[in-house]
Amino acid sequence: MDKINGLIQKVTVDYKDFPEHVNEVVEMKGIIHRIREMTGFAFVIIRTARDVVQCVYSPDFSDYRMDDKVVEGCAVKLTGKIVKDETREDRYEMQIHGIEVLSSPAEQMPIVINKKQLDNIPIDLNLNMRPVTLRNPKERAVFKIQEGIARGFREFLTSQNFTEIHTPKINAQGAEGGANIFKLDYFGKQVFLAQSPQFYKQMLVPVYERVFEIGPVFRAEHHDTSRHLNEYISMDFEMGFIESFYDIMNMETGALKYIVKLLKEEYAEEVALLNVNLPEINDIPVIKFMDAKDIIIKKYKKKITDFRDFEPEEEQILGKWAKQEFNSDFLFVTHYPSEKRPFYAMDDPADPEYTLSFDLLFRGIEITTGGQRIHDYNEQVKKMLSRGMKIEDFEGYLMAHKYGMPPHGGLGLGLERITMHLLGFKNVRYASMFPRDINRVTP
Amino acid sequence: MDKINGLIQKVTVDYKDFPEHVNEVVEMKGIIHRIREMTGFAFVIIRTARDVVQCVYSPDFSDYRMDDKVVEGCAVKLTGKIVKDETREDRYEMQIHGIEVLSSPAEQMPIVINKKQLDNIPIDLNLNMRPVTLRNPKERAVFKIQEGIARGFREFLTSQNFTEIHTPKINAQGAEGGANIFKLDYFGKQVFLAQSPQFYKQMLVPVYERVFEIGPVFRAEHHDTSRHLNEYISMDFEMGFIESFYDIMNMETGALKYIVKLLKEEYAEEVALLNVNLPEINDIPVIKFMDAKDIIIKKYKKKITDFRDFEPEEEQILGKWAKQEFNSDFLFVTHYPSEKRPFYAMDDPADPEYTLSFDLLFRGIEITTGGQRIHDYNEQVKKMLSRGMKIEDFEGYLMAHKYGMPPHGGLGLGLERITMHLLGFKNVRYASMFPRDINRVTP
Repeated sequence: MDKINGLIQKVTVDYKDFPEHVNEVVEMKGIIHRIREMTGFAFVIIRTARDVVQCVYSPDFSDYRMDDKVVEGCAVKLTGKIVKDETREDRYEMQIHGIEVLSSPAEQMPIVINKKQLDNIPIDLNLNMRPVTLRNPKERAVFKIQEGIARGFREFLTSQNFTEIHTPKINAQGAEGGANIFKLDYFGKQVFLAQSPQFYKQMLVPVYERVFEIGPVFRAEHHDTSRHLNEYISMDFEMGFIESFYDIMNMETGALKYIVKLLKEEYAEEVALLNVNLPEINDIPVIKFMDAKDIIIKKYKKKITDFRDFEPEEEQILGKWAKQEFNSDFLFVTHYPSEKRPFYAMDDPADPEYTLSFDLLFRGIEITTGGQRIHDYNEQVKKMLSRGMKIEDFEGYLMAHKYGMPPHGGLGLGLERITMHLLGFKNVRYASMFPRDINRVTP
Repeated sequence: MDKINGLIQKVTVDYKDFPEHVNEVVEMKGIIHRIREMTGFAFVIIRTARDVVQCVYSPDFSDYRMDDKVVEGCAVKLTGKIVKDETREDRYEMQIHGIEVLSSPAEQMPIVINKKQLDNIPIDLNLNMRPVTLRNPKERAVFKIQEGIARGFREFLTSQNFTEIHTPKINAQGAEGGANIFKLDYFGKQVFLAQSPQFYKQMLVPVYERVFEIGPVFRAEHHDTSRHLNEYISMDFEMGFIESFYDIMNMETGALKYIVKLLKEEYAEEVALLNVNLPEINDIPVIKFMDAKDIIIKKYKKKITDFRDFEPEEEQILGKWAKQEFNSDFLFVTHYPSEKRPFYAMDDPADPEYTLSFDLLFRGIEITTGGQRIHDYNEQVKKMLSRGMKIEDFEGYLMAHKYGMPPHGGLGLGLERITMHLLGFKNVRYASMFPRDINRVTP
């Protein structure tokens, strides 16, 4: 009888280990990314999980004879000798001795994906052909960076004794209100897709004190903009026993520093390939919402029409100001007006027109919204009633408050949005593997 | 101007650090879990993020005078002296010097959650009051164990060069077919909630070679059983360049061993509290589907009515057999009949009535389904047509095959299901924080 022992055997060699195998004959598996026929020899560029490796075919040292079965898109097992690449510093290549074709494409690519980047491919074509365009090294590097951001968030919070949670995406109520919510027929009942894990992460504060979730949320945005997705990955945390909402900003700052460090250390190839301008995070300045408006008026001579929120242009101005004054890519803006914040936001006891909340601007664009929440049952009910909400619809949520909740707060970051701004994309769709917008649910 | 430096200050002491602070006066924050009035003193049991800590109030050493504001459910900051608990070995307690009440409940609990376990509480009441019942130490320990399982899966696969992905939950087609799919109106178009990330993880094999995802999936099961949830967390991986589907079984076995090790090392308190019977995983035996049927017939004298799949009772028999014959809690069953496997399953070239697939049984219950997938475009199209499927509905998915895919395979595990069986629950709802079933979408 066969037995499975869980030992994972690896006979092939990864590119990063090539320097240890110079002049040895080794095996490598990968996909033929590109073939460049030269006079008397050929470059066979192999795409592996994380690298693009130059291999050289020549009848001089290959036992195998290249034929028309060896084409771009084939999965292959190569045998060959590792040598230093004489033309490029610190690069290695393989002299191909043998090629075994493991699988073959049915057709050749209709678009060119094996150049350095996807030049001249319109965004719609890129997204329509995502299973193919993601094979481009720069495209796939975007989502390695994205993996690093989510991983950094998780690893940092885990080190701070947060518990990772998974909360339901089928909900009986929306957490954020408004019309941008997807409705669903659930065995004859109308239910909703989660706009955020807000209710659940708060409910779990009296259970685990500190919780976080990285998972999908759904917003039925009716606008077709370059900044919105209808489904995105939200990174959320909520923490109990805070002294003030400054604890939340400190936790986020710690997480961001950790993420940048992780990207530098473990995603250096992708950072280099995409030429990512990683921020240096030192101390992040903090300014109150109304003081920020004041600076926009006095220093930048702008006329303000809305004192309840910022226009995108105003956020840009604040981003420039933070860079000039403090050499900081980040700026915390605090004490947003109560009427523009959700019903669970805690008002500032010193001035209840404003909340104990913040946004984090990164290079002049909002990437986080967070703040302290109401923990007292009567205070929460009062605020909900003042907004015309029906208490009986929120029985489960309010149960947490009724039977005791510590002072707490938290925040949410959109993973695609932070990826977009870190990589300097103009359209958030480039930061989603398979974006969902008002016109797109495929592939 | 304020600056946020990301330094997280901690002035309180966790229970696990009590031994280092004996006879010192320290601070601790937590929720009053239980008050037991004794003659002349009181036990004040504090629930922290992961512990339940015994504190003693006595006018002899407390500056503070307990009053009726100090009630169960209050969030408090305690000051007190750490001492050894003379009545229990290796336990420490705090002699309370002072209590600061940080927040108070509006009402006292309508049910008792501060006993060792939630005795005599019917499952519906437990689930209706989830924000409260999860505060019970045993209940919350279930989801720490669940965190450990997911974390182990992730950490092991990350160490094996898998890339973590997030795939869309709003899909244009179902991946698994059948009627158990939720429909959704998406700006006037009918779309579906993901039954599994199957298509997407396969599409990403030519991009990253190895990918995994831990995320929600949705099944519109019309049956109200103890084994099914309508929304659950699926742990999936897919790996390219496999030599055979044995590579997948080895990878899973490696992951399971890692998970058990992690639970032993980092979740020991919860393992002890719930009295978890962790499996010893050595070599896992493998048997072919038809050989397993044979054993059931010959050794256990059962009459088989269905040769396309197992009855739950037959899986139980196989579980017993694996334990008796091999002292193994696990058993891989391979080569399931083709007609009961999905259209993307690769048929066995030696006998196309069967597939290169497997289930993993854990103590006689199926916890994983996996196998090798078809990578050749023409072969995949042929199998889909033979099942009456419309090729044009799967254009995006088949693009991956058309332009070249390595041999590959993968698997999926339901996180709640594995938690349920590890903890010996009779109902999967106990393994979901906020379960969704045909009758339940709240809280």
